[in-house]
Amino acid sequence: MLHGADYNPEQWLDRPDILEKDIELMKQTKCNVMSVGIFSWSALEPSEGEFHFEWLDQVLDSLAQHDISVFLATPSGARPAWLSQRYPDVLRVNSQRVKQLHGERHNHCYSSPNYRAKVTAINTKLAERYSHHPAVIGWHVSNEYGGDCHCHYCQQEFRLWLQDKYHTLENLNKRWWSSFWSHTYSDWEQIESPSPIGENSVHGLKLDWKRFCTDRVVNFCQHEITPLKAINPELPTTANFMEYFYDYNYWQLAKAIDVISWDSYPLWHRDHDEVALACYTAMYHDLMRTLKQQPFLLMESTPSQTNWQPITKLKRDGVHLLSSLQAIAHGSDSVQYFQWRKSRGSVEKFHGAVIDHVGHADTRTGREVTALGEYLKQIRSVAGSQINSDVAIIFDWENRWALDDASGPRNQGMHYEQTVCDHYRGFWEQGINCDIIEQLSDFTPYKIVVAPMLYLVKPGVAERLKAFVENGGILVATYWSGIVDENDLCFLGGFPGGENSPLREVLGIWAEEIDSMYDHERVEFAMTSTAEFPLEGEFEAKHLMEHIHLETAQALACYRSDMFEGKPVVTRNTYGKGCSYYIAARTEHGFNSQFYQQLVRLSDIKPLVDNVPYGLSISLRQDDANRYLFIMNFCNEVRWFNCPDGEWIDQDNNNLCGEIKISPYQVVTIVNKLNL
Amino acid sequence: MLHGADYNPEQWLDRPDILEKDIELMKQTKCNVMSVGIFSWSALEPSEGEFHFEWLDQVLDSLAQHDISVFLATPSGARPAWLSQRYPDVLRVNSQRVKQLHGERHNHCYSSPNYRAKVTAINTKLAERYSHHPAVIGWHVSNEYGGDCHCHYCQQEFRLWLQDKYHTLENLNKRWWSSFWSHTYSDWEQIESPSPIGENSVHGLKLDWKRFCTDRVVNFCQHEITPLKAINPELPTTANFMEYFYDYNYWQLAKAIDVISWDSYPLWHRDHDEVALACYTAMYHDLMRTLKQQPFLLMESTPSQTNWQPITKLKRDGVHLLSSLQAIAHGSDSVQYFQWRKSRGSVEKFHGAVIDHVGHADTRTGREVTALGEYLKQIRSVAGSQINSDVAIIFDWENRWALDDASGPRNQGMHYEQTVCDHYRGFWEQGINCDIIEQLSDFTPYKIVVAPMLYLVKPGVAERLKAFVENGGILVATYWSGIVDENDLCFLGGFPGGENSPLREVLGIWAEEIDSMYDHERVEFAMTSTAEFPLEGEFEAKHLMEHIHLETAQALACYRSDMFEGKPVVTRNTYGKGCSYYIAARTEHGFNSQFYQQLVRLSDIKPLVDNVPYGLSISLRQDDANRYLFIMNFCNEVRWFNCPDGEWIDQDNNNLCGEIKISPYQVVTIVNKLNL
Amino acid sequence: MLHGADYNPEQWLDRPDILEKDIELMKQTKCNVMSVGIFSWSALEPSEGEFHFEWLDQVLDSLAQHDISVFLATPSGARPAWLSQRYPDVLRVNSQRVKQLHGERHNHCYSSPNYRAKVTAINTKLAERYSHHPAVIGWHVSNEYGGDCHCHYCQQEFRLWLQDKYHTLENLNKRWWSSFWSHTYSDWEQIESPSPIGENSVHGLKLDWKRFCTDRVVNFCQHEITPLKAINPELPTTANFMEYFYDYNYWQLAKAIDVISWDSYPLWHRDHDEVALACYTAMYHDLMRTLKQQPFLLMESTPSQTNWQPITKLKRDGVHLLSSLQAIAHGSDSVQYFQWRKSRGSVEKFHGAVIDHVGHADTRTGREVTALGEYLKQIRSVAGSQINSDVAIIFDWENRWALDDASGPRNQGMHYEQTVCDHYRGFWEQGINCDIIEQLSDFTPYKIVVAPMLYLVKPGVAERLKAFVENGGILVATYWSGIVDENDLCFLGGFPGGENSPLREVLGIWAEEIDSMYDHERVEFAMTSTAEFPLEGEFEAKHLMEHIHLETAQALACYRSDMFEGKPVVTRNTYGKGCSYYIAARTEHGFNSQFYQQLVRLSDIKPLVDNVPYGLSISLRQDDANRYLFIMNFCNEVRWFNCPDGEWIDQDNNNLCGEIKISPYQVVTIVNKLNL
Repeated sequence: MLHGADYNPEQWLDRPDILEKDIELMKQTKCNVMSVGIFSWSALEPSEGEFHFEWLDQVLDSLAQHDISVFLATPSGARPAWLSQRYPDVLRVNSQRVKQLHGERHNHCYSSPNYRAKVTAINTKLAERYSHHPAVIGWHVSNEYGGDCHCHYCQQEFRLWLQDKYHTLENLNKRWWSSFWSHTYSDWEQIESPSPIGENSVHGLKLDWKRFCTDRVVNFCQHEITPLKAINPELPTTANFMEYFYDYNYWQLAKAIDVISWDSYPLWHRDHDEVALACYTAMYHDLMRTLKQQPFLLMESTPSQTNWQPITKLKRDGVHLLSSLQAIAHGSDSVQYFQWRKSRGSVEKFHGAVIDHVGHADTRTGREVTALGEYLKQIRSVAGSQINSDVAIIFDWENRWALDDASGPRNQGMHYEQTVCDHYRGFWEQGINCDIIEQLSDFTPYKIVVAPMLYLVKPGVAERLKAFVENGGILVATYWSGIVDENDLCFLGGFPGGENSPLREVLGIWAEEIDSMYDHERVEFAMTSTAEFPLEGEFEAKHLMEHIHLETAQALACYRSDMFEGKPVVTRNTYGKGCSYYIAARTEHGFNSQFYQQLVRLSDIKPLVDNVPYGLSISLRQDDANRYLFIMNFCNEVRWFNCPDGEWIDQDNNNLCGEIKISPYQVVTIVNKLNL
Repeated sequence: MLHGADYNPEQWLDRPDILEKDIELMKQTKCNVMSVGIFSWSALEPSEGEFHFEWLDQVLDSLAQHDISVFLATPSGARPAWLSQRYPDVLRVNSQRVKQLHGERHNHCYSSPNYRAKVTAINTKLAERYSHHPAVIGWHVSNEYGGDCHCHYCQQEFRLWLQDKYHTLENLNKRWWSSFWSHTYSDWEQIESPSPIGENSVHGLKLDWKRFCTDRVVNFCQHEITPLKAINPELPTTANFMEYFYDYNYWQLAKAIDVISWDSYPLWHRDHDEVALACYTAMYHDLMRTLKQQPFLLMESTPSQTNWQPITKLKRDGVHLLSSLQAIAHGSDSVQYFQWRKSRGSVEKFHGAVIDHVGHADTRTGREVTALGEYLKQIRSVAGSQINSDVAIIFDWENRWALDDASGPRNQGMHYEQTVCDHYRGFWEQGINCDIIEQLSDFTPYKIVVAPMLYLVKPGVAERLKAFVENGGILVATYWSGIVDENDLCFLGGFPGGENSPLREVLGIWAEEIDSMYDHERVEFAMTSTAEFPLEGEFEAKHLMEHIHLETAQALACYRSDMFEGKPVVTRNTYGKGCSYYIAARTEHGFNSQFYQQLVRLSDIKPLVDNVPYGLSISLRQDDANRYLFIMNFCNEVRWFNCPDGEWIDQDNNNLCGEIKISPYQVVTIVNKLNL
Repeated sequence: MLHGADYNPEQWLDRPDILEKDIELMKQTKCNVMSVGIFSWSALEPSEGEFHFEWLDQVLDSLAQHDISVFLATPSGARPAWLSQRYPDVLRVNSQRVKQLHGERHNHCYSSPNYRAKVTAINTKLAERYSHHPAVIGWHVSNEYGGDCHCHYCQQEFRLWLQDKYHTLENLNKRWWSSFWSHTYSDWEQIESPSPIGENSVHGLKLDWKRFCTDRVVNFCQHEITPLKAINPELPTTANFMEYFYDYNYWQLAKAIDVISWDSYPLWHRDHDEVALACYTAMYHDLMRTLKQQPFLLMESTPSQTNWQPITKLKRDGVHLLSSLQAIAHGSDSVQYFQWRKSRGSVEKFHGAVIDHVGHADTRTGREVTALGEYLKQIRSVAGSQINSDVAIIFDWENRWALDDASGPRNQGMHYEQTVCDHYRGFWEQGINCDIIEQLSDFTPYKIVVAPMLYLVKPGVAERLKAFVENGGILVATYWSGIVDENDLCFLGGFPGGENSPLREVLGIWAEEIDSMYDHERVEFAMTSTAEFPLEGEFEAKHLMEHIHLETAQALACYRSDMFEGKPVVTRNTYGKGCSYYIAARTEHGFNSQFYQQLVRLSDIKPLVDNVPYGLSISLRQDDANRYLFIMNFCNEVRWFNCPDGEWIDQDNNNLCGEIKISPYQVVTIVNKLNL
C-alpha cells in the first residue's frame, strides 16, 4: 500500500539540510513512495545537450537507502526556456490560431518533430540511467496531459487522420452532412480544425477533432514510452489522469499505459454535507478502476487544501483519512499527494503539502497524514484485492462530446456527468459496487446495465444491448437515447435508434419529441404499482421530458401535468429472458432512489447490507483470502451500521456483530477471512 | 395565402425515395410554397465554373407539377470552400482586425470584388434558367444579411463614403467633434472603422459606421438583384429580415427589395403567460407591414421549437395556430417555416421542422401544421387585404444606435426596444391598429404620433412634428428626447431640441437634467384630474426621471418623492389645433394603460371594441369587400369578447352577436362583408 | 482656496461668443482656476512641426485678465492622428501582443523614442511660451497616466531593468523560484512580460513587471518634466491620480511631481446611506495627503453626475457641498471639476459640468457650484493648513499586487482595499485623523500603526515594526501577514515572518494555517474582558480564519465554533514599552468599532469628541493661527454634535458651545483661534 507525494528536490538543491530533513520527515509521516522529476527538465538539461544527473542520482540513492520507492517522471510536462527559444514549433497554436509564447506548462504541440526528438533524447537518458535503479518502481509519464494544438503540423496530421478514416472526400462529406450550409469540401486542404474564427458548426468535424486529439496524445504518450520500454520493458508506466476530464477519451489513453493513476481534488466542505460530493467522487474512482479492471493509484490529492479553487477549505479533522480511504475502498492501492513540501515561490506555493513552509510535520496536517500512513500500514494486505460488480453504468466520452455539442434540445445545460452520477447514486447508496463502463465495453459480465442519455450509439451497441437483455440482463435507458450514430447523424425512422433498431425493439417504445424546461420548472408524474414493478408514488421531473408512445412496453408511470399529461413516462418491456426500462424524463433523487431499490429487489443481486442509512457509503474489496468492507460516514451525524452476515473482524482483530457506531466523517474497515 | 417552408433537397440527392415522399407530405400538410436553394451553392457549383443544375431542374419541375410554388434563393448566404480557398479576400475581417477562416455562413465581405463577381455569375445562371420557371414566384435574395467587415476594401469604401458625405476633413472633424481628446483627423487615411483595439469613443464615427454598413449591404443586395431583374424584371424579390435586428437600418434595406419578409422566433412559454411576448411580437409584425405599407411574408418560423435558444419549448397545443395567425392578423400573407425536413447532421439538425427524423407527418407537430394549413385555406381571401392605422409609434434605427452608444445617462440599460413596446402596448391592448414608423416617415396620415425617447432628431423632424400638432395631431413625447442632432452633437440652448427648437415650442417645456435609478428604485408621482385630461391616480416611475420646467405646458402629474418632489412629470400643451404630451420619467404598465385609454377617449379615434379583456389581442384587416377581425387569446384562461356592431360572420358563415367565448390560446377570425 | 475645472476652449474656437460667455460664467460661479490644454495636442500642432499657439495665447491672456489662474497641461494624454500614422511605434502593444490601432487616449508606449522626442518638442514649446505667463500657476503633466505596453522596446527595457536589479540570471532564477515548473531562464532574451498567451504563473516575474511599469511611468513623467523645469524651475508640477488605482505604485510616482492631485468620483446615492462610501473616500483623500505630508488638490470631481458609471445619480441637494468639503477637510486645497462645459459630441458629452448644454448657470447644478464657490471663499484661510495624525494605517501597493496574485488562500476575493478601509473606519468614526502610509514609511511619528494583511514584508520592515513597539508604539496586525518576502518567496520556519522573525517575536504568536470561507459562512468568537483589554462580547468572523498558537502573547478572544473552536483569534502581546495585537480572522464592523474604541482608550490619544454619532465625520486641520473643525453628516437624518472644549466660532463669528444640530448632508466648519 503506497503512501507518498510529488517530490521536487530540484527546488532545494542549495539547501542540503532541507533535503536531508526530507528523508527524516518522510519516515516520520509514514511515506514510502515519492514521484520525482515531474518538472525537472531545466535541472536535468539546463542547456541543449548538457545533462546534469548527479543531483538526481543522489536523491534516488538516498531514497532507496531509506526504503522509499520512486515513480520517476519523464519531464515533458513543462519544457526549458531554451527549447522554446530555439525551436518555436514546440509552442502550441490555439484554436484562434494564435501561437503561444513560452511559459506555463502542459502546452507543447504533440506533433512538433523537435519536441518529439528532444523528449526521446531525455527519456532515453533517464531510462538508461535509472530504469534499473533500486528505488524506481515505475514511470510517471509526463504530467496531466491536456489540451490541443492547431498548428500547421497538427492540421496536416488531422488531414492524414481523416484520409485514413474516410478515404474519399465524398465519404467524408456524407458522414459530416456537409451539404448543410453548403459546407461541402472539395479539397483536403480546405479542412481546418474547429475554430471560433472559422468553422464551428459541423458536428462531424468537431467530434472527429476530439477523436483525433485523443489519438494524438495516445500517439505522443507511446512515443514517450518507446525509449523507456526499450531499456527495461518490465518497469510499469502510468500517466496521471484528471477528474471528469473532457479533452481526451481516457479509454484510449488507458491502453497506452500499464497502470491507471489519477489526481483527485474534491471540494470537501462546499455543501451542507459531503454526501453528494462523496458519491460524485466515488463514481470517478470506480471509472478509474474499471478502465483496466485492476487497482489504480491515487497519484495526487491534497493533504489539506488546494490553492487554485475559488474557496479552498481545510479538511476538517478526520476528513483526510475518510477521503483517502474512499479511494482505497473503490480500488486504489495508494494515497499520494501533490505535494511533499510547499515550494517557496511561484503559483502553487500555497497548495497543501505534507510539509508546510514551517518545515516540520508537527502540524495538524502533519498529524493527519501520519495517522493515515499508520492506517494504510495496518490494512496493507488490501493492496491488490479486486472489486466485483454486478452493475455497470455507461459513461461514454464520445457520447458526452456529441451530447454537449448537439445544439439542442437544452443548450442551457444537458448535465451529462451529473445525470450519470444521479443514476449511479441509486446503487452507491445501497452499497452495491458498480463498474463505470463505456458503450464499447463488454456487457455480458453484468446483471444490470444503466445507460443514461445514450444519445450517440455506435455500430453494434444496440445489437449487444438487445442480446444482453435477451439473455436475462436488465437494461435501464432514458430520454434522449439512440438519437445519432457514430458520425453524429440522426437515426431516421423513429427514436431511439431509428427504423428497425434493436434498441427500439428491446425498449418497446417510440420517442416522438422532447421538451425542455427552465431550471425552475417541474412536471409531475405518478407510478402505478404493478405486479411486475410494485412501486407507487408521485414524483417530479425536470429539465427534459420526452413524448413517447408504447409499442411493446407497458407504462409504469404517467405524466400528471403539462402538455403530455396522461402519457407514459416510465416504461418496462419484457424481452427474452430479461427486461428493459425506459425513463422518459429527467428524474430527481427521490425517484431514482426508490426506483433502483425496487430494481435491485427484482434482480438476483443481493446487497451486502439492507437499508444503508443516509450518508453511509459501503464498499467491498476482496482477494482469495479476505473480503474487506469499508464503511464510510460522509455526513455530520453518527450513523449505525448493521454488521453483515459472516465472521467479520475489525482492525484490532475483534469479532463484530450487531450494530456498529460510525462517527461523523469516520471510516471503519472490517475483514471477513475467506479461508478460515 | 402561402403556407410552406425552407426546403433543402440538396441534402437528400442520394435518397430519391425521400424527395418523392416530400411531395406527398407537402400535400398532406397543406403546404403550397417552398423556399429552395438557400444554401445550395456547393451543390450548384461544386468547383469553380462547373455548374450542376439538373437536380434543381427536377426539384422545381416536380414542385410545379404538384402546384407547389417556389421562392428561389440566391446562394450567397454561405459560400463553397473552394471560393474561400482560392479568393481569400471574400473572408470577413472582424473589428479586432482578425481575418476569419472559412466556415459558418453569412460572413462574406460585402466589398470583395471576387465575391461580387462570383455572386453575379451564379445569380445570372439562376436567373437565366429559372426566372420564368412555372414554380418560381419570387426571389429569396441571400439569407439573413448581417454583420460587418473591417478589411482593407471596406476601410477604403468607408473613406470614400465619408468623403462623399462630408467633402472636407474640416467638416468631418466638426461634425464628429473630434477636437475632443485631440482626435482631429488630418488625413483621410487616418480614419479606421471603430475597433476595440482602436477608436471606440467618437460617437460620430460609430454612428456613421453603422450607416455605412447599412449602405454597404443595400449596395450588395442591389448588386445581387441586378442580374436577376435583367432577365425577368417582373419577378419580385424579397430578403428575409430578423427580429429587432440591430446591424442595419431596415428602412433602407427595405427599399432594395419588392416584398418584405421576416423570420420570427418568439420564446413562447418563457413567461407565466404569453401576453407581454405577444405584444412584443405584434409590434415587430406591424413594423414589417409598415416598412412598405403592404402585406409582408412570414418567411421563417418554427412549427415546434428552435434548436439555438438556451431553453427551447415545444409549442403547447393550439399555440402554433395562434402564433401563426397573429402574423396574418398583423399583415402577413404567409406562414412559412424553417424548415421542411430536419437535416440528419450539422448544427441545426434539431431545429423544428414539419417533417421530423421519423420521416412522416403523423406526429403532434405534423397535425398542428396540417390544421393550420386548412385554416389558412379557409381564410385565403384575407391575402392582400390592408391594415389602416390612426396611430403611429416611432421606432427609429439611427436613434437606437445613437441612444445605446451615448455613454450616459444610464449605461446599465436604456432599453429602447422595450420602451417603445411599452407605449405600443397602450394601443395594442385596446385593439387599435398601429403603424411602426421611423422619424423620416410622413406623420400626416395619423391622428396620434408617439415618439418614445427620441434622443436623436434629424433635420426637419422637429418642424414636421410641430406642423403635425398645429394641424390637429396629438403628439406624445418622453424624457430624453431632442438631445442630439443627426451627427450625435448635443443641441445647445435647452432640451428638447435646443434654443428656439420647434420641438421645445410644441411641447412647452424645458428639460434641465435627468437622473438615473438603479433597477430596484422607484419614484412616485400622482396625476391630477383636469378638464383637459380627466385622469387621476398614483403611479411609479423607474430607471430615468427628468427634471423639467413648464414653459407653455400645464402639469398633469407631479413627482411625489425623491429629489424632484413637487415638480412636473406629465405635461400637456395645447398647440394650434392639436396638443402634445410630455412624459418626463419612465412609466410602468399601470400608467401607460390608463394614460393611453384616456388619450384615445379624448381623440376622434373610435376603437372597434370597448374594454378588451386582459390577454385578448384584436386586429383588423380589410379590403374593398371585407373586414377581417382576428381575436386572439394569449392567456391561459377563457376570455369573453363582445362582438362589435355590424354584421359579423364566423368561418362557418354563422351570424354573430353578443359575447363570444375565446378559449385559452384560441384564435377566432370573423368577417364583416362590406358590400352586402 | 482653488475652485475651478478642466477647460477645453479648443472645442469652441469657432464660437468666440461662447468663449467670452465662459469668462462671465466663471465669475458668476466663483471659479478661480482652470486646467487648460489637457487634450490640445491636435489644436497646438495640427501637423508635424506646425504649431498654433495663438488661440491659447488669447485664452490664457483673457483668463489672466479676469484673475483666473491656470494649470497648464502637457498634451501627452492623447496624441494627434498624424503621430500614430507616421510613427507606429508610439502605439501600445497589449499583453496578448496585439498592437493597438490609433484612437482613444492614455495609450502610448512609454518607451517609444519617437513619442518621447515629440513630447519633448511640444513640452519645450509650451514651457518657452507659457511658463512665465501670469495666469499659469502650475503644470498639469499629461492626464491620468495608466496601463502598460508590451512592445519590443518595453521588453528590452524590462530586461535591462532586470539585469540592473539581479545582475545574474542565477540570482534572478533563485528570486523568482523559477525551478518550479522548470521555468529556469538561461538567456535574458527568454524573458518576456507576463501574458495570457505566455507566462502568467511566476509571481516574481509578475511582481517585477508591476514595479517596472511604475518605474517606466516615473521615468516618462520625469522625461516630460525635464524641459518644463529647464525653462522655469519654480513652476510646480502635478499629475492627476486616480482612486484606488492599481497599475502603478503612487508612492513612486509622487516623487516625480511637486504637488499631489487626484480625480474623485464616488458613487453617491448607491447605498441606503452614504456612510460607508464616505469612509472609503475619506481614506483615499488621506492617502493623497500622506503621500507628501502636505495639502493636495482635488483635480477632478463632478458637479452633478458622471457619464461612465453603470448608473449615474445626480447629487441630491447639498451633497455637492458636503462631498467637496470632505476633500478640504481631509487636506485638499482645491475643489476642481471635470469639466467646465459639456462638449457637444464624443464619449464624455454627458459627463457633468458646471455649464450644461443649455449654456448658462441658472440651473440646479450651477447654483450648487456657486454656493460652494462662496463657501470656499469664506474658509479660504484653511488653504495651506496641515493635518496631524497619531494613527497610521498601512496600505501598500506592492503588498496589494502580491496579495491579489498569490493564488490562494481565497481566490474568490481577498478584498485588500476594503479590509484596510474596515480598519480605517474604526478611527474615522471616532473622528481621529489617520495617515495612510506604505510599509517603507517612517513609523516613529505615530502612536498606533495598523497593518492589515501585510502579506509581503520587505527587508527591514519587521525590524522597524519591532522597534516601534519596543519604544512604546501600539501595533495591530492581522491574519495573512508576514507570509512572503519582497520577491514573493515564502518565509520559512513559521509565519508571520519566518524563523526568528522580529515580526513573530513582537506579535508573540505562530500562525500555522489559514482556512477560507464561502461568502455566506461565518464563524463565531468571543472576547473575554481582561485587565489589559477590558472588552467582552460575541462577534462573527468571515472569509478567512487562521489557526494560530500563542507564544508570548495572551488570548483576548477565542473561536466559538467550527474547526478551531477554543483556539485564540485575538491576541495581545506586551513588548518593550508598547504592545501589539493580532487579529487572526476577518472581523466585521461591529467588532472593529468596539475594538478600536477600546484601543484608543488604552492609548494616550485623546479624541476631540467623545461618542461621535453614527453618520457624522469629524476632521481637523490646523495651522499656526487656527484649528478648523469640519463636521459632516453623511446620513439622511439630523445628528447632534457636542462642541469640543475651547472657544469655537462658526462662519458668522458666533461663539459655539453645547450641542450643534447637523442636518442631513450638511457640513459645518468651525474655527478655534489659537493665538487669541
